Amino acid sequence: MRPDGRTADTMRTVELITGVSPYAEGSCLAKFGNTHVLCTASVEDNIPPWLKGSGKGWVTAEYGMLPRATHTRGRREAAAGKQSGRTQEIQRLIGRSLRAVVDLRALGERQITLDCDVIQADGGTRTAAITGAWVALKQAVNWLIEEDVLGNDPVYGQVAAISCGVISGEPRLDLCYEEDRVAEADANFVLTAEGGIVEIQATAEDKPIPEDAFGTLFTLAKTGVRELCDIQKSVV
Amino acid sequence: MRPDGRTADTMRTVELITGVSPYAEGSCLAKFGNTHVLCTASVEDNIPPWLKGSGKGWVTAEYGMLPRATHTRGRREAAAGKQSGRTQEIQRLIGRSLRAVVDLRALGERQITLDCDVIQADGGTRTAAITGAWVALKQAVNWLIEEDVLGNDPVYGQVAAISCGVISGEPRLDLCYEEDRVAEADANFVLTAEGGIVEIQATAEDKPIPEDAFGTLFTLAKTGVRELCDIQKSVV
Amino acid sequence: MRPDGRTADTMRTVELITGVSPYAEGSCLAKFGNTHVLCTASVEDNIPPWLKGSGKGWVTAEYGMLPRATHTRGRREAAAGKQSGRTQEIQRLIGRSLRAVVDLRALGERQITLDCDVIQADGGTRTAAITGAWVALKQAVNWLIEEDVLGNDPVYGQVAAISCGVISGEPRLDLCYEEDRVAEADANFVLTAEGGIVEIQATAEDKPIPEDAFGTLFTLAKTGVRELCDIQKSVV
Amino acid sequence: MRPDGRTADTMRTVELITGVSPYAEGSCLAKFGNTHVLCTASVEDNIPPWLKGSGKGWVTAEYGMLPRATHTRGRREAAAGKQSGRTQEIQRLIGRSLRAVVDLRALGERQITLDCDVIQADGGTRTAAITGAWVALKQAVNWLIEEDVLGNDPVYGQVAAISCGVISGEPRLDLCYEEDRVAEADANFVLTAEGGIVEIQATAEDKPIPEDAFGTLFTLAKTGVRELCDIQKSVV
Amino acid sequence: MRPDGRTADTMRTVELITGVSPYAEGSCLAKFGNTHVLCTASVEDNIPPWLKGSGKGWVTAEYGMLPRATHTRGRREAAAGKQSGRTQEIQRLIGRSLRAVVDLRALGERQITLDCDVIQADGGTRTAAITGAWVALKQAVNWLIEEDVLGNDPVYGQVAAISCGVISGEPRLDLCYEEDRVAEADANFVLTAEGGIVEIQATAEDKPIPEDAFGTLFTLAKTGVRELCDIQKSVV
Amino acid sequence: MRPDGRTADTMRTVELITGVSPYAEGSCLAKFGNTHVLCTASVEDNIPPWLKGSGKGWVTAEYGMLPRATHTRGRREAAAGKQSGRTQEIQRLIGRSLRAVVDLRALGERQITLDCDVIQADGGTRTAAITGAWVALKQAVNWLIEEDVLGNDPVYGQVAAISCGVISGEPRLDLCYEEDRVAEADANFVLTAEGGIVEIQATAEDKPIPEDAFGTLFTLAKTGVRELCDIQKSVV
Repeated sequence: MRPDGRTADTMRTVELITGVSPYAEGSCLAKFGNTHVLCTASVEDNIPPWLKGSGKGWVTAEYGMLPRATHTRGRREAAAGKQSGRTQEIQRLIGRSLRAVVDLRALGERQITLDCDVIQADGGTRTAAITGAWVALKQAVNWLIEEDVLGNDPVYGQVAAISCGVISGEPRLDLCYEEDRVAEADANFVLTAEGGIVEIQATAEDKPIPEDAFGTLFTLAKTGVRELCDIQKSVV
Repeated sequence: MRPDGRTADTMRTVELITGVSPYAEGSCLAKFGNTHVLCTASVEDNIPPWLKGSGKGWVTAEYGMLPRATHTRGRREAAAGKQSGRTQEIQRLIGRSLRAVVDLRALGERQITLDCDVIQADGGTRTAAITGAWVALKQAVNWLIEEDVLGNDPVYGQVAAISCGVISGEPRLDLCYEEDRVAEADANFVLTAEGGIVEIQATAEDKPIPEDAFGTLFTLAKTGVRELCDIQKSVV
Repeated sequence: MRPDGRTADTMRTVELITGVSPYAEGSCLAKFGNTHVLCTASVEDNIPPWLKGSGKGWVTAEYGMLPRATHTRGRREAAAGKQSGRTQEIQRLIGRSLRAVVDLRALGERQITLDCDVIQADGGTRTAAITGAWVALKQAVNWLIEEDVLGNDPVYGQVAAISCGVISGEPRLDLCYEEDRVAEADANFVLTAEGGIVEIQATAEDKPIPEDAFGTLFTLAKTGVRELCDIQKSVV
Repeated sequence: MRPDGRTADTMRTVELITGVSPYAEGSCLAKFGNTHVLCTASVEDNIPPWLKGSGKGWVTAEYGMLPRATHTRGRREAAAGKQSGRTQEIQRLIGRSLRAVVDLRALGERQITLDCDVIQADGGTRTAAITGAWVALKQAVNWLIEEDVLGNDPVYGQVAAISCGVISGEPRLDLCYEEDRVAEADANFVLTAEGGIVEIQATAEDKPIPEDAFGTLFTLAKTGVRELCDIQKSVV
Repeated sequence: MRPDGRTADTMRTVELITGVSPYAEGSCLAKFGNTHVLCTASVEDNIPPWLKGSGKGWVTAEYGMLPRATHTRGRREAAAGKQSGRTQEIQRLIGRSLRAVVDLRALGERQITLDCDVIQADGGTRTAAITGAWVALKQAVNWLIEEDVLGNDPVYGQVAAISCGVISGEPRLDLCYEEDRVAEADANFVLTAEGGIVEIQATAEDKPIPEDAFGTLFTLAKTGVRELCDIQKSVV
Repeated sequence: MRPDGRTADTMRTVELITGVSPYAEGSCLAKFGNTHVLCTASVEDNIPPWLKGSGKGWVTAEYGMLPRATHTRGRREAAAGKQSGRTQEIQRLIGRSLRAVVDLRALGERQITLDCDVIQADGGTRTAAITGAWVALKQAVNWLIEEDVLGNDPVYGQVAAISCGVISGEPRLDLCYEEDRVAEADANFVLTAEGGIVEIQATAEDKPIPEDAFGTLFTLAKTGVRELCDIQKSVV
């Protein structure tokens, strides 16, 4: 029995709320139960130096967490003077995941930055961030098309992400924090609407994961991502 | 005529929404028009080293702004590796303002940290932060009293803040961003419900402010703070 | 009775000694009793990036304190790897105060940096710094005029600053350190020779300041700044 | 045809050379073709603060690369003043991978740090690091047992790692740099000698990976890790 | 002919002015011509962690330069966020030089920090700093003896320093800045009153220094240091 | 009797092994007994800003030490977020020493960076680094000549370095770590093949060095450097 009464293959209630930022070119508040991540897409003309003159654009992400998004207060990274290894790992993951479905040449020499800020954290913040960031990105690109800046849509695929894990030997979909901290294994799947693999990160916390348990997690994730893609489609 | 049609002595619509954080001991989303600041109060047992053994507690604040809270994206301070001078100035101001109405000895050896994170910025973020932070602080202290950790309320005063400014020679209350960036003078008043001065910061942007203009700004501020105090009282 | 025998409305002996740096385009050692601040003005051709091509110049300030300027040794900021929030607050204040009386367009695309280094600290270092920095700035501009680099004087106003405070209910002018650390309220006034307000920062340390006490502090400050302006005028 | 003439399912020549450090409690120079990683294990009495008094120890890793380990010189991280996100990601991965086969309670309140320094880089540095670090760790633990510091071996499993990737649609084992930079997909597998999953990181570089391609990569990796485990066993 | 008319073996006018800081336990303004270095000695009870419980004290130094001490303004190290390699090299040199004549055990578990801040720089700042710092140190120790904190004088030797250099083949004593920047070779000698070597740093700037030229520089330095020691003795 | 049985005027076995890096334009593993320093030379087109357009090139060095190069593990500087003062001092010394024998104009507008990374440390790492770096530099320049990038050899001199020290009153050549940490005096000599002085750094650790002891150290060093120069010549 899960802490919130769900069955092993059920996700939490997911809401993808758009239009939450009055200024950003795209925005989405992604709610996976008590995990709330505010994703904004900012279109800028400056691109990384190594792309200058290449005719290609860039999609990147930054990730942050409000100090009291969690059960106990965490240190503010700006005050600490640096982003933690975990933060950097997550923002690199979000960026890679989105770039896997974007034609950077079709985007032209501009950059879209996805800011994913966790307002409340109850597990699965990085997968909620990817799922919401795709919506914000899509909105920003739609805006560029409406403004006649772009002729073709550079976003050629749809991507969403979900976490799974093994608790007391049981593979479960979409872990909340209470489950996450006791999981024997933890896996994040970033998949396309068609089931293509964008990124898999599976980690044994305590002891190695048997191959068949990994297979079950993968199956759960595919179901979850299909559902998430339907919700995404309904808002963009 | 002001950009949003207000008269010179009218504040924007103010909402102080409590209970917005499921984990913090106190929380308040302060909305001054399009300026939205999320304030949380976290009670912790550790205090600054110089207070160890003194029997006194501490109230402090941290301030941040989401990169796309503003019209154009700003740099994330955690990525930049440091807090700007402006950020440090503001969080020092918030902390001082709250401590001016708290009996630190009555608080005992514990610290309350007010995190003020700007979700949307349309001018006046520091004054909205102070106004909302007082609510979150009061809630946290009420919680400590309910939990029988504290016998007496260490918060002996009520404090709120508002910005004023001079635009084209006209003193105005509660500037929005469009006004703020063209103001000839800018003043932030932190006052108690009784009109006592907690902090005044008046700055000439372009040319010195005549003494009587300053007097008018002060009068506007006193009206504004009285209104804010009424709203605060209605939610705690 | 004040620690050094002054009456409440008397400043310490003030000396503004010019020509103390053999290399800087302007320099002034500002002595307010035992508070000694060395102010130098450096003219440079590089300006901040956002002013390139604007035809406007910039005036900025940096502030520092020798580690043993104070009664007990403080940490060297260069060794600590960053400037404290206090330092940044003060150097921003000095820069703003001077810019309020400078026509940046008349200055042309060049920058004048005021370095204010506290050699000895006995309270009121930021107001001594502003007062001395104005002298150094004026000297540097005079030098630019003599060198035929500038045709017109871009410094169209005269600015000086003084601190005031309330000790045991008594408003006093120009606090020394011993008074500063026990003051109930503390206010810094940056005013022009004509009494215009450039910056006011008033802070309640312990309990809110009544409005009339603030009025008394303002009156004291106006007298003090008038005196400082006379001394400034006698040396430039 | 691969750049160095290997078939798709062949690893480069692997050597695990022990005893390369005269001072470390364990050491291994892991050579995977032209990729050379020097791994040392250092036993220390100090443990992370959160483990003090827990009776448990810690295994952690640091990763670095000599500036000219690569074809063109990279910036020295110590001179840059921080470790890159990539470096932090890799050292977190190495640490997690090893901890998955260590009984931290059996280790007692001590820490073993694995320093993995890349002397030459030709692709697959993180997997060579994990493979070599396990050897160094095992040596250090053997030394602790010989010295009668430990009674039981806390390392209850054997772990090794290999990279795979898809180039022009062909799944290949153990990519060299020339392959790595053109791969459509890239996957790192950290597995136990028995085939249990410790960590999987699969990343689509350009377009999503079909599920069956992922399956082929996994099969290649299992063969590769089995071989690596045999080599490890032959040296400890 | 030297820029200021001196002969090759003549030092600039040297003044060691004591009592310049009202707060420090020892202080000396060392003037070597236009080079002015303010040296203060601060006695503190905290010592470096590795000396705790050893019964030994520590003598250390910090070095800084006001941004406009030089002909053109240099960057403030506190603003840059770190001390340059040159600064660290110099402060390590000052500390080592003083410790060479101090019995750290006789000092007891306390630390004396010498802050050497360059107010004006015209070459030879590090040697002026060492010469002045010894005076400040000696004063601080005398104060500890007068206060009955120490029974015996831990400073058992007298140390001073001077720079020499080769310009157009001519060995010269005590270079000024104009000479320093064109010198073919540059040497700093830290010697005791008895001629013992505390530190020698000789550097060829452009081409190797012949051994006999080095010998001449050494001879010049010995004369110079003897003179400096006489001046030191006259003020402590 | 020395720890390893050498006589006072005998160096450890020195090996200079070239061709150790497959990618660098020059490389040398310098072994002085158990001290092993890997030196690589990297030729790059970018030069420091202040040399742009000058027609002159630059030779610079960076120094690092693997954390477990030493008897007990040292902190990784990249993790600490900065290079220590010692590291900066050493890398500045290596760069200066090499530039003293290079015609920067003949090098043209390119930079050669010498990375000196200590793999094992048993005393004398900086002198081994200089000796090996000269070899790597020479190789890189030879490569530039072979590639017809340079017509003339800009390296017009040969430079090597050795440490000496006084232990229990006995001057000794080429100290190992065990000697270094108990030495009363420590001196590093960087000399040319012809005996010209490039750099001398002599330091009294505990009490001043008599002048004649310094003379003996210098004589030892000259013999040592002559030997090192012969070995260098045999490998380039």
